[in-house]
Amino acid sequence: MTVAGEGVMADPQSDAIWILSSTFIVFTMQSGFGLLESGTVSVKNELNIMVKNAVDVVFGGLTYWIFGYGLSFGNASFSNAFIGWGDFFVTAEDEKLGIVYSKFFFQASFATTATTIVSGAMAERTKLVSYIVFSMINTVLFSIPAHWVWSSKGWLYMLGVVDIAGAGPVHIVGGVTGLVATLMLKPRHRRYDGERHKAPTMSSPTNAVLGMFMLWWGWHGFNCGSTFGISGLKWKLAARSAATTLCSSVAGGVGGFFLSYIMKDRKFDVKYMINGLLGSLVSVTAVCAVVQPWEGLIIGFVGSLVSNAGVALLDKLKIDDPVGCVVTHAVSGVWGMLVAGLFLRKDKLLNALYLHKASTGLFYGGGLYQLGIQSFAVVAIIIWTVVVSFICLKLIDVTLGLRVSLEEEIIGADIIEHGILEEEIIGADIIEHGIESIRNGHVRGETQDAIEQNTADNNHIEVNPAALVMGDDLFQGVIIHADLYNVIY
Amino acid sequence: MTVAGEGVMADPQSDAIWILSSTFIVFTMQSGFGLLESGTVSVKNELNIMVKNAVDVVFGGLTYWIFGYGLSFGNASFSNAFIGWGDFFVTAEDEKLGIVYSKFFFQASFATTATTIVSGAMAERTKLVSYIVFSMINTVLFSIPAHWVWSSKGWLYMLGVVDIAGAGPVHIVGGVTGLVATLMLKPRHRRYDGERHKAPTMSSPTNAVLGMFMLWWGWHGFNCGSTFGISGLKWKLAARSAATTLCSSVAGGVGGFFLSYIMKDRKFDVKYMINGLLGSLVSVTAVCAVVQPWEGLIIGFVGSLVSNAGVALLDKLKIDDPVGCVVTHAVSGVWGMLVAGLFLRKDKLLNALYLHKASTGLFYGGGLYQLGIQSFAVVAIIIWTVVVSFICLKLIDVTLGLRVSLEEEIIGADIIEHGILEEEIIGADIIEHGIESIRNGHVRGETQDAIEQNTADNNHIEVNPAALVMGDDLFQGVIIHADLYNVIY
Amino acid sequence: MTVAGEGVMADPQSDAIWILSSTFIVFTMQSGFGLLESGTVSVKNELNIMVKNAVDVVFGGLTYWIFGYGLSFGNASFSNAFIGWGDFFVTAEDEKLGIVYSKFFFQASFATTATTIVSGAMAERTKLVSYIVFSMINTVLFSIPAHWVWSSKGWLYMLGVVDIAGAGPVHIVGGVTGLVATLMLKPRHRRYDGERHKAPTMSSPTNAVLGMFMLWWGWHGFNCGSTFGISGLKWKLAARSAATTLCSSVAGGVGGFFLSYIMKDRKFDVKYMINGLLGSLVSVTAVCAVVQPWEGLIIGFVGSLVSNAGVALLDKLKIDDPVGCVVTHAVSGVWGMLVAGLFLRKDKLLNALYLHKASTGLFYGGGLYQLGIQSFAVVAIIIWTVVVSFICLKLIDVTLGLRVSLEEEIIGADIIEHGILEEEIIGADIIEHGIESIRNGHVRGETQDAIEQNTADNNHIEVNPAALVMGDDLFQGVIIHADLYNVIY
Repeated sequence: MTVAGEGVMADPQSDAIWILSSTFIVFTMQSGFGLLESGTVSVKNELNIMVKNAVDVVFGGLTYWIFGYGLSFGNASFSNAFIGWGDFFVTAEDEKLGIVYSKFFFQASFATTATTIVSGAMAERTKLVSYIVFSMINTVLFSIPAHWVWSSKGWLYMLGVVDIAGAGPVHIVGGVTGLVATLMLKPRHRRYDGERHKAPTMSSPTNAVLGMFMLWWGWHGFNCGSTFGISGLKWKLAARSAATTLCSSVAGGVGGFFLSYIMKDRKFDVKYMINGLLGSLVSVTAVCAVVQPWEGLIIGFVGSLVSNAGVALLDKLKIDDPVGCVVTHAVSGVWGMLVAGLFLRKDKLLNALYLHKASTGLFYGGGLYQLGIQSFAVVAIIIWTVVVSFICLKLIDVTLGLRVSLEEEIIGADIIEHGILEEEIIGADIIEHGIESIRNGHVRGETQDAIEQNTADNNHIEVNPAALVMGDDLFQGVIIHADLYNVIY
Repeated sequence: MTVAGEGVMADPQSDAIWILSSTFIVFTMQSGFGLLESGTVSVKNELNIMVKNAVDVVFGGLTYWIFGYGLSFGNASFSNAFIGWGDFFVTAEDEKLGIVYSKFFFQASFATTATTIVSGAMAERTKLVSYIVFSMINTVLFSIPAHWVWSSKGWLYMLGVVDIAGAGPVHIVGGVTGLVATLMLKPRHRRYDGERHKAPTMSSPTNAVLGMFMLWWGWHGFNCGSTFGISGLKWKLAARSAATTLCSSVAGGVGGFFLSYIMKDRKFDVKYMINGLLGSLVSVTAVCAVVQPWEGLIIGFVGSLVSNAGVALLDKLKIDDPVGCVVTHAVSGVWGMLVAGLFLRKDKLLNALYLHKASTGLFYGGGLYQLGIQSFAVVAIIIWTVVVSFICLKLIDVTLGLRVSLEEEIIGADIIEHGILEEEIIGADIIEHGIESIRNGHVRGETQDAIEQNTADNNHIEVNPAALVMGDDLFQGVIIHADLYNVIY
Repeated sequence: MTVAGEGVMADPQSDAIWILSSTFIVFTMQSGFGLLESGTVSVKNELNIMVKNAVDVVFGGLTYWIFGYGLSFGNASFSNAFIGWGDFFVTAEDEKLGIVYSKFFFQASFATTATTIVSGAMAERTKLVSYIVFSMINTVLFSIPAHWVWSSKGWLYMLGVVDIAGAGPVHIVGGVTGLVATLMLKPRHRRYDGERHKAPTMSSPTNAVLGMFMLWWGWHGFNCGSTFGISGLKWKLAARSAATTLCSSVAGGVGGFFLSYIMKDRKFDVKYMINGLLGSLVSVTAVCAVVQPWEGLIIGFVGSLVSNAGVALLDKLKIDDPVGCVVTHAVSGVWGMLVAGLFLRKDKLLNALYLHKASTGLFYGGGLYQLGIQSFAVVAIIIWTVVVSFICLKLIDVTLGLRVSLEEEIIGADIIEHGILEEEIIGADIIEHGIESIRNGHVRGETQDAIEQNTADNNHIEVNPAALVMGDDLFQGVIIHADLYNVIY
């Protein structure tokens, strides 16, 4: 997005249609995040994290309509360099109808993406009710920096900051909020106990890679649509955005494969590929339309290394980020913002995006000015995000509570929050008994006994009666937790 | 769709491209329905329902090309207020080439959607051959009401009915046909026996939610594309359609979460979310482009409650609707049609969609006239659908038979219709023997014995040899059915 | 694609945007191929084949940017009828910015598709490192014939060949390369041993059908986008392309269902449906925009039969093509090329695609000239592909080695290449022991003993401890392989 949307568009019909078409693509990213997260967490929370991705659009979309859009792009007299005001409960008539609604639709897809990033960092241990409240509040976190960067009144815009598709308001905000959330939530149960430094088994690596694919294609809509139109020279920038984004992701993928090959003894760990590819896509968002493909390659390759290094560092620090979103978005987002201070060239194409306040970057002889502006923006956005997200999450924590109980975490959200078991036809009581055992702090033997007793009554089908009831995945979940529980108590 | 497509388009190039782009998005809904249904039914029919969704496009697409398009939009001398005539075996030359083909492509995506809705209601017990014949005939069911509403000669259009994206011809027709079909088919085996009022376990709630996501995004293409162009004022209406559809779905999601929280003791049942969200999307289809987002919120919230209440009612009435499509589409579709009688405002934007025959709705001081027209349309479409779908389905029932045999239902369509087993390398004979036992009405013990015997011969791997052959899901399916069978006989 | 992109576009803004929008859709085909292949191979290679589809874009995209685009469309003085030269490391400024980048983006999606076709033929037995190298080199295989057909200097173009969306450079090249690769790799272990003529169980038929759906929708973007613009008469051709492609796929689906019903004793084998549908889509690519829907139906129906017959023939010849891609793409691709010699009509619409050098086809009284040209193109492309792909693959084979070791193949690439096991928390040692047994050529009893011993130590949960560690699918994989191994040694 650029401030282009604020003024009168040169060819509003073509521009609006481009924005709508791009947004159709951008919204598929929500399903991409959902699948990536669902495939990466343990089986017992596979459904829950999909639901949380729907929550982001449902509840985040609601507050974005109520106040988010207004805080970013409101033009009422109270609006100033720091905050937009007006256009709450988005409604438009006559002249503004097409522009406001297409812009709202597009921006809503950005706002809900910023929230969805956080869902990964909070995975496997956050109460759904608390997450719903969080997703509503989180809209503020995105909307204010969006005003700074993308409103013609915004103070960062006036300083000349360049962030075409949201490295700051979307990715740094999302990633940093994720960091605050995971620090507050603390690691998942037994994630960093003793010398066991292992994450739980991915529920479905295949789904995780499918999610990565969906994000990959969606990102092209995200970056290309951010020219916010095709009139004038903007269609050329949209085309360059496509080529540069593709090249950046290519380099990111190469980086991920390369790193995994070296670090994991010639094995290709899909997490390296996913983190590398997504890290590179984040890295290029700020400048996608205004740099050349070969620059995209460099930017993406560095972004991929930075992203994978960050994941390793976070793990060393025993900060539990189940889906790797904190680093992929925050660290690569910072790199993405700085990139504009290095690679920017001041030409008529920059002006076509209303970025005439920006300066030439360091690598093209413009000195440190633009890099300074970009760094300043990074710092400002991080400070904003840390402070406000801490306050919001703390408020939720002391009122509703953020984290589920230990018993609930061990059993998993798919059973606890979504009541998968209740629908079953046979044997539910046996499982309920087993879960009760766990709830009551009894050791695994209890669950075992119940299952074995039932087993004996059923012609020795072992394993089956309970597994039948719950679906195999859930059954495995319960047993795993029973086992873990047993180890602890 | 509106009658816009009938006349000469103001800017045919831009309009046609908009229609094509939207249709690319609309067709993804077919996969969305497929996944939603596949994830909701029991494992033994997971593949079969995906195939039925392909059948809808393959065979429904064929008859839509042969006669469906002509019955809706044919302009030959025989065509009248009730039925279109001409343009069979769709072919166009010269001037009409672009308009006819883009319109055919778009309308074909609507026609196949109408059929696919029915597949959910008929799930888990309908013969595939009969379903193929049904999907071919069902084109008529859609095409005639489509003519009434969307042709400039159609009698409902001439009365001033408003149904922009097909609440009537797509959703009411689909949902009501589903109701007729499920009443004729009767509930699934043991679905409402005794006090067991439980549906079978969903094969994959994760896939069901992914399907919901795909439908959600596809619906935006569906509603936005239904302005049938972007020239003149239509691009503004497409933009409003996007914002209003998003807001409506947001309210629908909120409604679903809210209801589940209350009704299911603070649990978030995904079925409530899915039915609520889809119900809200259906509700807003008729007026998506001509109401404001805040009206969309109200419409969607009510649609969500109506949809979920309907599902509960149907279950009380022991009408078995495996995927909840009857209510989501028919009841929310009725609400969607009535909405136009309440929220319509007569302005130049309405005229831009050639809806100048419509009147102001009740809430804006227009009295009951438009509400009457909309209700009349609802009644007419329901009567048409009930009568014709009953005749069609009955004809299929007495010739080919609609419902599979009890044995086949118990074993499941993935084995019976798609011969999954035949491909296997080891142990197929054992399973075949087990299935034979079931077919022959022997009790579970037989299956058990066969499996246990084999187990003994295989170094005591219990469970495994058979499970290996069939894949775990199918194996579970057979055992479940064996168990159920045992209980009955 | 047509040579249209070479000259000045009539309305470059609209044309470029159409190309970008189509490419967003085309890229989803990569995920479609991924899912189709992943659902079709055995569980032990499910993830690996998804990764290989990402490799195609990452590494294939890199070399396409470096030299592929230049070899196809470079215009430097060295470029001639056989090869393009120039525009390496694609970069564009000023006037050419929009056209070059949108064309590069579009063509890159074609180039990576051509490679991805091959991944299916090489599935389940190719080293990932070797595949990475192959995907980089394969770019050459696509880019040279693409120059012949789609460059205004290309010798086939100058002879008047018609291949709008790549039946030759994409599908024949992909399918024939797949054939060379599978012949060189030889069949999968025990695939054609003794009388066991059975393919391994599909890991997920549901995912395979979902993949088919994604390819189906993506193909519409592929064919419609290949008008390479919408200005002038091209929007009409894009619309016809949509209608014709849909009709062709409909006939392909009908053919697949029909064949399966006859050949498989009234069962509907999804492989027939998938091969039929994809075969029909391949068949219509060369002429999608210039023939009528009813011609599309004939072309697609024949394509479907040809495709399914080819799969059966290949199986008879004991040529192992795990996903059926060789026939679907090569044989239907040949039929697709010949089709232009039969159905072509010389009119102004053909000229709008710069195909004025083409002649009327046989069925419209043009005699054998165009059929001769098309046949000549087929032969030339096949010879090119066989020779160059053989050299490339042989080079990789003698340096890196193409095929994994027997032990690695039995265990599966998901464990061997992606180290799924390493992440596990409990019991990994047991499995490692089991795998060691297999590696060391011990009989299954060893694995069994290890598992049973562990089982005994764990309160008799049988089966579970190991299954817990690996996820059920992988566990099954190991056991299956253990069994197979046992049978052999």
